[in-house]
Amino acid sequence: MTTTTHPFDTAISLSDKGIGTSTGRTTPEYANMVGPFGGVTAAAIVRAIAEHPDRIGEPVALTVNYLAPVTDGTFDIAVRAARTNRTNQHWIAEVSQDHGVTTTATAVFGIRRDAWSDTELTMPDAPDPESIAHTTVPGPVPWMRNYDMHYIEGGVPTDAAESSSSTTTLWVRQRPARALDFAALSALTDVFYPRVFLRRGRMLPAGTISLTTYFHVDGTELAEQGSDYVLATAHAQRFARGYFDQTAQIWGRTGTLLATSHQIVYYKD
Amino acid sequence: MTTTTHPFDTAISLSDKGIGTSTGRTTPEYANMVGPFGGVTAAAIVRAIAEHPDRIGEPVALTVNYLAPVTDGTFDIAVRAARTNRTNQHWIAEVSQDHGVTTTATAVFGIRRDAWSDTELTMPDAPDPESIAHTTVPGPVPWMRNYDMHYIEGGVPTDAAESSSSTTTLWVRQRPARALDFAALSALTDVFYPRVFLRRGRMLPAGTISLTTYFHVDGTELAEQGSDYVLATAHAQRFARGYFDQTAQIWGRTGTLLATSHQIVYYKD
Repeated sequence: MTTTTHPFDTAISLSDKGIGTSTGRTTPEYANMVGPFGGVTAAAIVRAIAEHPDRIGEPVALTVNYLAPVTDGTFDIAVRAARTNRTNQHWIAEVSQDHGVTTTATAVFGIRRDAWSDTELTMPDAPDPESIAHTTVPGPVPWMRNYDMHYIEGGVPTDAAESSSSTTTLWVRQRPARALDFAALSALTDVFYPRVFLRRGRMLPAGTISLTTYFHVDGTELAEQGSDYVLATAHAQRFARGYFDQTAQIWGRTGTLLATSHQIVYYKD
Repeated sequence: MTTTTHPFDTAISLSDKGIGTSTGRTTPEYANMVGPFGGVTAAAIVRAIAEHPDRIGEPVALTVNYLAPVTDGTFDIAVRAARTNRTNQHWIAEVSQDHGVTTTATAVFGIRRDAWSDTELTMPDAPDPESIAHTTVPGPVPWMRNYDMHYIEGGVPTDAAESSSSTTTLWVRQRPARALDFAALSALTDVFYPRVFLRRGRMLPAGTISLTTYFHVDGTELAEQGSDYVLATAHAQRFARGYFDQTAQIWGRTGTLLATSHQIVYYKD
């Protein structure tokens, strides 16, 4: 039997350099237009914290700030617990390369407990992913080839038509299929192409500056998703003179709200 | 003529201890159930960055993590620019007291420029604030007395009735009236009582763990608000075993979306 490491696991593979410091390496499979896919950087940070010997609990919140592109090659991740409380722990992380800090992050890990719970949001209506054609994304964006994407609305614009809505909804899973975990879910929250492309009907310079994700499941609930598709939906609230926001939800196929996520994106137009 | 310092300005007043470090002091006016109102801590961090001699631009994004309650008395704020780009700057901040770090934050400041812009979200319908009775908040929450609050929906529950909706919408302004600036807007994003109180019809242990705000206006547009009411609306998306999220918008009276804001809150029930 031959086992092959999934390209995602290769992309977030870290070599321990001592407690709280590790080294990773960019991979061509997860390259973006400039530097690597922001989602894979977020995933590597989640992985680095998860592997820290002092870590308790599982991800509850994550904010990743993209200061500068990560250049191809190795990068260092430093993580430290700023405070450990009884049921949660606050982390600070920095990704750096020879040219300086490229990424900062804060994270909250926590332990969930029995409490009254409810999902107030309603999952968008969507036909089964198997009934929707797979979308081939145009252009030179390698990382997108690592995902099976079936757009329900708001696919990548190809006809130069402006849209009055910035909403994109798609079924998505890793390609090849891979069981969903917190690192993969963190990457999925950044799977949307920039909302300004959809509104303007064309590509233009744009990039995420800061991404915040709230996780709503524990590892056991997440594992129940297996390698199935998730329903990912995102929209912008305001485009304001060079910066727009995006708010997103990631749903399991049977209606579990796995994560809600927000980002602020710069654009030129 | 006698000028009196506004209690909010007193609460976020900082003494310079050298470049990037300053000291503040909690005030009884902005006390919460435990420690100060989280919004005033966020505001003090924004103030500390704004006063840094190397700062460029105005707030675009802010994430504040609440690690432990700030105890009554003095606190130190340390801020540093992690990277300065051509049109934006990434900041890291820590608030600490004798017992350790209480608060961490990251922020993006930036320069806005002419670009295609649009507000995609629609402002909620609301009658004029002057036509709605002022709400007196029950219980021992001093900081709420610093705001004139006129609830349109989702007022603080007083009848032990559960609600199927976590939405609260209110007109709010500082009391006494004070011109809106980025510090005040940062505090306003945390002006909502915990959504779980509304759903469950009663108060229970709850507290913000992490707050992220995206600013959609520059200082000139913000100053146009003067000391007028803003329309603040918030709802939760999922309550999941001890943690719920909240997503909020702050609108100027004439329909300018000033900020969108998100937070994750722990609760016991």
